[in-house]
Amino acid sequence: MHTFRSQTCAELNKSHVGETVRLSGWVHRVRDHGGVLFIDLRDHYGVTQVLCDPDSPVFAEMEKVRSEWCIRIDGTVKARDESLINPKLPTGEIEVYVRDLEVLGAADELPLMVFGDQEYPEETRLKYRFLDLRREVMQDNMKLRSDVIMSMRKRMWDQGFREYQTPIITASSPEGARDFLVPSRLHPGKFYALPQAPQQFKQLMMVAGFDKYFQIAPCFRDEDPRADRSPTDFYQLDMEMSFVTQQDVFDTIQPVLQGVFEEFGGGRKVDREWPQIPHADAALWYGTDKPDLRNPIKMQVVSDHFRDSGFAIFAKLLEQEGTEIRAIPAPTGGSRKFCDRMNKFAQQEGLPGMGYIFWRDQGEGMEAAGPLAKNIGPERTEAIRQQLGLGVGDAAFFLGGKPKAFEAVAGRARNVIGEELGLIDKDRFAFAWIVDFPIFQLDEENGGLDFDHNPFSMPQGGLDALLGDPLHVKGYQYDLACNGYELVSGAIRNHKPEIMFKAFELAGYGKDEVMKRFGGMVNAFQYGAPPHGGCAAGVDRIVMLLADEANIREVVMFPMNQRAEDLMMNAPSDPTSDQLMELGLRVIPQE
Amino acid sequence: MHTFRSQTCAELNKSHVGETVRLSGWVHRVRDHGGVLFIDLRDHYGVTQVLCDPDSPVFAEMEKVRSEWCIRIDGTVKARDESLINPKLPTGEIEVYVRDLEVLGAADELPLMVFGDQEYPEETRLKYRFLDLRREVMQDNMKLRSDVIMSMRKRMWDQGFREYQTPIITASSPEGARDFLVPSRLHPGKFYALPQAPQQFKQLMMVAGFDKYFQIAPCFRDEDPRADRSPTDFYQLDMEMSFVTQQDVFDTIQPVLQGVFEEFGGGRKVDREWPQIPHADAALWYGTDKPDLRNPIKMQVVSDHFRDSGFAIFAKLLEQEGTEIRAIPAPTGGSRKFCDRMNKFAQQEGLPGMGYIFWRDQGEGMEAAGPLAKNIGPERTEAIRQQLGLGVGDAAFFLGGKPKAFEAVAGRARNVIGEELGLIDKDRFAFAWIVDFPIFQLDEENGGLDFDHNPFSMPQGGLDALLGDPLHVKGYQYDLACNGYELVSGAIRNHKPEIMFKAFELAGYGKDEVMKRFGGMVNAFQYGAPPHGGCAAGVDRIVMLLADEANIREVVMFPMNQRAEDLMMNAPSDPTSDQLMELGLRVIPQE
Repeated sequence: MHTFRSQTCAELNKSHVGETVRLSGWVHRVRDHGGVLFIDLRDHYGVTQVLCDPDSPVFAEMEKVRSEWCIRIDGTVKARDESLINPKLPTGEIEVYVRDLEVLGAADELPLMVFGDQEYPEETRLKYRFLDLRREVMQDNMKLRSDVIMSMRKRMWDQGFREYQTPIITASSPEGARDFLVPSRLHPGKFYALPQAPQQFKQLMMVAGFDKYFQIAPCFRDEDPRADRSPTDFYQLDMEMSFVTQQDVFDTIQPVLQGVFEEFGGGRKVDREWPQIPHADAALWYGTDKPDLRNPIKMQVVSDHFRDSGFAIFAKLLEQEGTEIRAIPAPTGGSRKFCDRMNKFAQQEGLPGMGYIFWRDQGEGMEAAGPLAKNIGPERTEAIRQQLGLGVGDAAFFLGGKPKAFEAVAGRARNVIGEELGLIDKDRFAFAWIVDFPIFQLDEENGGLDFDHNPFSMPQGGLDALLGDPLHVKGYQYDLACNGYELVSGAIRNHKPEIMFKAFELAGYGKDEVMKRFGGMVNAFQYGAPPHGGCAAGVDRIVMLLADEANIREVVMFPMNQRAEDLMMNAPSDPTSDQLMELGLRVIPQE
Repeated sequence: MHTFRSQTCAELNKSHVGETVRLSGWVHRVRDHGGVLFIDLRDHYGVTQVLCDPDSPVFAEMEKVRSEWCIRIDGTVKARDESLINPKLPTGEIEVYVRDLEVLGAADELPLMVFGDQEYPEETRLKYRFLDLRREVMQDNMKLRSDVIMSMRKRMWDQGFREYQTPIITASSPEGARDFLVPSRLHPGKFYALPQAPQQFKQLMMVAGFDKYFQIAPCFRDEDPRADRSPTDFYQLDMEMSFVTQQDVFDTIQPVLQGVFEEFGGGRKVDREWPQIPHADAALWYGTDKPDLRNPIKMQVVSDHFRDSGFAIFAKLLEQEGTEIRAIPAPTGGSRKFCDRMNKFAQQEGLPGMGYIFWRDQGEGMEAAGPLAKNIGPERTEAIRQQLGLGVGDAAFFLGGKPKAFEAVAGRARNVIGEELGLIDKDRFAFAWIVDFPIFQLDEENGGLDFDHNPFSMPQGGLDALLGDPLHVKGYQYDLACNGYELVSGAIRNHKPEIMFKAFELAGYGKDEVMKRFGGMVNAFQYGAPPHGGCAAGVDRIVMLLADEANIREVVMFPMNQRAEDLMMNAPSDPTSDQLMELGLRVIPQE
């Protein structure tokens, strides 16, 4: 018989009755039923009930065994009484009568329990991650993560992509976030950087003729932690293709992601229509470039109804250039109580408030209520109602000003309204491509131009477009939104040096600066660069959505805490003076 | 028609004749045959011959096209004349008459040619890696690497393993080499480290109950570069299993690696018998713990034949304790010229020389020649011949002293002898497990004990063994050797805190030191650790062997040069003063 196990803890059933077996695992739960010890023995695969009474030669040792000890038992498989069969357990038909025991690893007093649903502070969970991970939900999350990544790989391979590894110790990459630096020993005083993404390398691979690349790529950004973001390293399904248009990229990645969501979504509905929404429309309709399309609310411009109206605030506002009034329709939100609560929400978000109208049935037909309705009169109110397609029991909220100033709040209000009114189908994954991102934005501080997203996207219209108004130039650049999260970001790249230099020039970077920062890639573009494009999908975030978790640390095996510390391994820690000397570095004493 | 291509450059054949097609790719070669331009158009998949004559509307533009320009052409598929069919090319039956041309990316003058076999200095190749990688051999190497890793993953999945990612920004790991450090911004003056291997994390996963783990894991060691080692990051097929013996690990990984070698070995013979050779025997027989078993030479101890013999040097040597005489049999090496050359080799390696005997046919039967034979006389010489199983035309070389002092040279001599005599079957992969490594070795400097390999292996005999002579304690620790390379290293781990503390105590580390250096793992072992073990296989080295390359940089997409620099991306480079300030660091000026 094998030294440790003849079967796993998930394998035994009625067909094994009478056999002598060997199992190894952890003591999940111990119950003492009047001198008979019942132990749920757990391993990665399942649980088997084992029992022991004073007739067993190892009863005395069995009595000493505690939760989470790792043990090996030999015993005889017995059928359970009909009444004691547990149909929910694959091993629920049998139990194992223990005749021999070996303690493989005893356990000290436990800082957190594996059995049961007790909640523990995150610091405890991370410090004792090896225990936390034994809990069923964590085992399931990690298995899910592994299976999702396996599925992604298989789906990419099936489409003719090969996975290639790009360097991890490399040069600073220009993704816009902060780099992690790595001091060089062979070149003291110089530093490598960990890649924020394999952006330049994947583009270099296209220049090298590799045609279809993907990688489950570790990425590194020295950013302050957030619930949906790791403070150090995270993974992307990174891909790039040559000789493609934007639509080719969509047609390639949609089946991969849709397949993954269908495979691991646990029966939740996965939209097969992925609309392409221009960036400007997303801002208008949803107040964000990562809209939650499960929420049916779509905002509309209603400026005309307020121009020269009796509602002086809006009427006056509209006299300023670049202002608009937008409405958030709120079907079934037609009560003063609800409207007041939403108004309060807007105030908490820093706005003066949200005007509203709601429609109720006063016995003699529909009535529009709320201060706004009174101010603008019944005709305009009715026109608004018709434009928004609302009726009795519904409401609408109004925000005005320069869109940039209120758009984000409007987006959040839309979320809250949809949430509170129960308009969001929780059992659904709704996707949308957000397209036509602007290449440039106005730098509020110095009034100059800055790149809106990333500087490597091909401008729609090429060099000619850059010679017009840069703020009107859109890029072949796209995001995929799902349920309010950005899952994917990508672009058709700017592979023409002259267009790239022009774009950088508009953003205030001279040729020298471009060559200094992105020389590796720009240099390569001068040796026969193919048109190419691709995208990167956030693996951790996809798993988070599939696992229905709100925090990324629930789907990462050994995450850092919110202060970017690993409490289990004690990182970061003080370097030795030898290490610092080898690297030619000195630590500046902190005050 | 698609914007860039209707087919790849490997797809067109006779069935497409008459069709209008669109191809994109690189100008591989241009030939001008009396006013007709022939261009080999190349993409990732293949080559298609396109041609153009003055009747084509784009002939003038076609004339400007140069090597490695990236172009798109439209044209008509034509059958080649029977005499011009190229059966070696999948597209060899056809050619495409060009009617439209678009230059997608022009190329400057090329620093290295893609077409042809010209050799370039490594610095040029690495600086222009995007061109170097366009060469057929590099495309093939990278595809091979990708396919090997895919195959490894599939084979591990098929055996019930899941891949889990371990942290890359973490604490110093105790593999014994130098860590790369990463300064922390949130904790100025403190540092993370990049993992030398996921050793502690994979063991923590076993403690967490994950049972079967693998990962194609990036590993980081700040080591000085070598041909078969990357100076920065490299990849391992890392795996770990719970509730297993050493033999279980062998039975798991052998089919994976054997399968990979059979799949990608290009018809070379792959041994199916993998002998298990104790470490001490490997040292004796092959002079190394990574023997090349394609070489049939097996060294033997021949001390007795020299004890009190007429060869005073060896006779005297043997009076000292711990000395031995060993023979390297050299079948077919029986000429004075060859023996002298090998003797010279030993002298170049720093030894006084190698004594030898060779056997020749002098007409009247076999004669043993060489100075040694004369000194020890015919009886002893014949006894040696019989022990070594040699005959006419063979030779034997002799080395004496303390084995540690000459073993390595003996091993190299064995390689050279095997090589020069043509005893090595180049078309074969020969594997051997080297087992029973000693846990400790004597520290030459201070006379104390030090760990021989890695401190986490379970000693054979457990705690009891550690109470005897530590230098006799062997570990459940193993390497896999293939053709003279170490491909795999692994162990059954020491999962019992008391045995681990004892082992460290013997090596001079107190409990505090152990907790400080390996606290994360040792702490976990106190909460029900399962017996576990595993191994890690060097991915880059395996691909190197399969690709029949002698340098690891030939199978890495974007390698550093020998000074750990990336000349293409300019790494490492100077940090900005802002970066240093954020990290709380100052660079010490170098003299």
